Amino acid sequence: MARHTSPRVTALVVIDMINTYDHPDAEPLMASVRRALPAMVGLIDRARRAGVPVLYVNDNFGRWRSHHGELIDRALDGPHADLVTPVRPDDDSLFVVKARHSIFYQTPLDHLLSELGVSRLVLCGQVTEQCVLYSALDAHIRHLEVAVPRDAVAHIHPGLAEAALEMMERNMGAEVADARALSCDG
Amino acid sequence: MARHTSPRVTALVVIDMINTYDHPDAEPLMASVRRALPAMVGLIDRARRAGVPVLYVNDNFGRWRSHHGELIDRALDGPHADLVTPVRPDDDSLFVVKARHSIFYQTPLDHLLSELGVSRLVLCGQVTEQCVLYSALDAHIRHLEVAVPRDAVAHIHPGLAEAALEMMERNMGAEVADARALSCDG
Amino acid sequence: MARHTSPRVTALVVIDMINTYDHPDAEPLMASVRRALPAMVGLIDRARRAGVPVLYVNDNFGRWRSHHGELIDRALDGPHADLVTPVRPDDDSLFVVKARHSIFYQTPLDHLLSELGVSRLVLCGQVTEQCVLYSALDAHIRHLEVAVPRDAVAHIHPGLAEAALEMMERNMGAEVADARALSCDG
Amino acid sequence: MARHTSPRVTALVVIDMINTYDHPDAEPLMASVRRALPAMVGLIDRARRAGVPVLYVNDNFGRWRSHHGELIDRALDGPHADLVTPVRPDDDSLFVVKARHSIFYQTPLDHLLSELGVSRLVLCGQVTEQCVLYSALDAHIRHLEVAVPRDAVAHIHPGLAEAALEMMERNMGAEVADARALSCDG
Repeated sequence: MARHTSPRVTALVVIDMINTYDHPDAEPLMASVRRALPAMVGLIDRARRAGVPVLYVNDNFGRWRSHHGELIDRALDGPHADLVTPVRPDDDSLFVVKARHSIFYQTPLDHLLSELGVSRLVLCGQVTEQCVLYSALDAHIRHLEVAVPRDAVAHIHPGLAEAALEMMERNMGAEVADARALSCDG
Repeated sequence: MARHTSPRVTALVVIDMINTYDHPDAEPLMASVRRALPAMVGLIDRARRAGVPVLYVNDNFGRWRSHHGELIDRALDGPHADLVTPVRPDDDSLFVVKARHSIFYQTPLDHLLSELGVSRLVLCGQVTEQCVLYSALDAHIRHLEVAVPRDAVAHIHPGLAEAALEMMERNMGAEVADARALSCDG
Repeated sequence: MARHTSPRVTALVVIDMINTYDHPDAEPLMASVRRALPAMVGLIDRARRAGVPVLYVNDNFGRWRSHHGELIDRALDGPHADLVTPVRPDDDSLFVVKARHSIFYQTPLDHLLSELGVSRLVLCGQVTEQCVLYSALDAHIRHLEVAVPRDAVAHIHPGLAEAALEMMERNMGAEVADARALSCDG
Repeated sequence: MARHTSPRVTALVVIDMINTYDHPDAEPLMASVRRALPAMVGLIDRARRAGVPVLYVNDNFGRWRSHHGELIDRALDGPHADLVTPVRPDDDSLFVVKARHSIFYQTPLDHLLSELGVSRLVLCGQVTEQCVLYSALDAHIRHLEVAVPRDAVAHIHPGLAEAALEMMERNMGAEVADARALSCDG
């Protein structure tokens, strides 16, 4: 059952892309991010031109004294800024800080989506078999439509990422397709 | 970080085993349940003898007029009672009804575990790549230790079940092992 | 902002009326329940005739081995059955067990309301300055419309109950009026 | 039941004090804030000297594009900076943005408290009969100890504020006393 909004309103969610990549497992993740960046940039660009809200939901890495401006500066000043610059927030972007795991867990995202009247999420970013999977589940439980562009999400473990995409499609009702084939226009 | 309980207190959770098996996907699930039943029965038996709380958390299949006694009667009167009778609750069992998905989602389980001082869950039942996976995630987020007996959980899709077990072990800190090898003694 | 349902769909919620009244503070509460019973009975009757869902949300008093049939039997067999019989559930009533406090806290109520398409709650029962107040807040946060019939809710402490009704009206957007004046027809 | 932490660890929570006071009801609220400021400043000072974590939990006023640094700057640049400057965060302060109502509702506060091992909250700030009350309830439900300094919380409506303090003391197990009489030392 979808939320009782008509017509369908989409938001694009960019997950955990503000990252310094200094954690374990960063190597395989960065390789995958590099491959997924063009499709992410394409989606963000399409959303911005169509007036679709772009929501950044990002781990704060336990930095409760920092605000999200500092998280962004820190990532842009780090050695892997090339993975952050292409997808960084602009002045119209919305930003929600999360503690860990799902984009919904202990965040105001549900409230913000309700204010915006959003009934469908396009999820891009990282990590396919972790936060993207958990977020798709939490969105599905909340009766939101979910779309996952398979070429615009990045993974650590290829086999688990493939399984995660199949779980999202089969068990969480998500639309899984190439970014190009997914609607992201409002 | 585990909950600040010392010493460790375990509960055995039996997930969605009170079932009439009249839904789609019941066929492959029943075959898997049949294989997993002996290990489940063994775990329940060990828990009961050790005084470990046995918590049944079960879908109510949208029957908001029925109580859990009726759910059990209905499953025991159905054509697949042979899959229910061996693991049915006794008078000391605790019972929590859930709406869908995770054992924690919109249920009083967290409150009940807190009352019991439980810091570790052994999860058995069904479906490995769905409710068991989602419940392991929600337990991990809540800083509970999680153990999953790989021979006492039942699946619909073998490949996704295998991936789910690996996700639980790798990304949710779960102990995944044969039932026999897992502690279930308090 | 109200939920995006149109037209408005109402449910009547009967809070914590399945009670053995053997707890502290039962004396002043029972006196207030006696005064509120006729208006509650009137509301339940109107709702049933209009086809408005009647949802019982009730504390389980820590009896995790009992199901709600047993909770009802226990209250009807007790010394204060006269306070329970007039408002007991019928076969069409829906029943949700709660652990403590709000009707939403760790219960499937939100899920059930979403399934029913409900956008407005009429809250009756007990205790005005405790569970009724907390439930009105939680409903308001969830963008549900709330109505509280001031003659169909029972209190322990008259001054706090009066303040609670004013808080609900002033700060939680609730409609507070006599039961007779409140719409309860769908 | 209190959380299983020993010994007791306290945090001081400063609620909604980063404010431009340009909303309805600001007039009576500002008068009350002025009276409560000295006791708040005293508490914050005691907490900082004792090494007690000081957590600012603040409404973001729907400004999802702004981060908390901008919220603070905006309040300090406004016409009522005299009500903000004395209690502003320092470099050691922790900051959590909330959407509305309780400090726990859709915020990472629970996660942060768990990381810090906090088992007791001292709540100061505004509004006594709204967010302070709702937050005390949500802390109580989560088995946290709650203390409310009656001279360090600000209200809009004096009668409802008095009732709210009595509700917190009587029904939510909160310690309500003058700031001076409350422990705030870790």
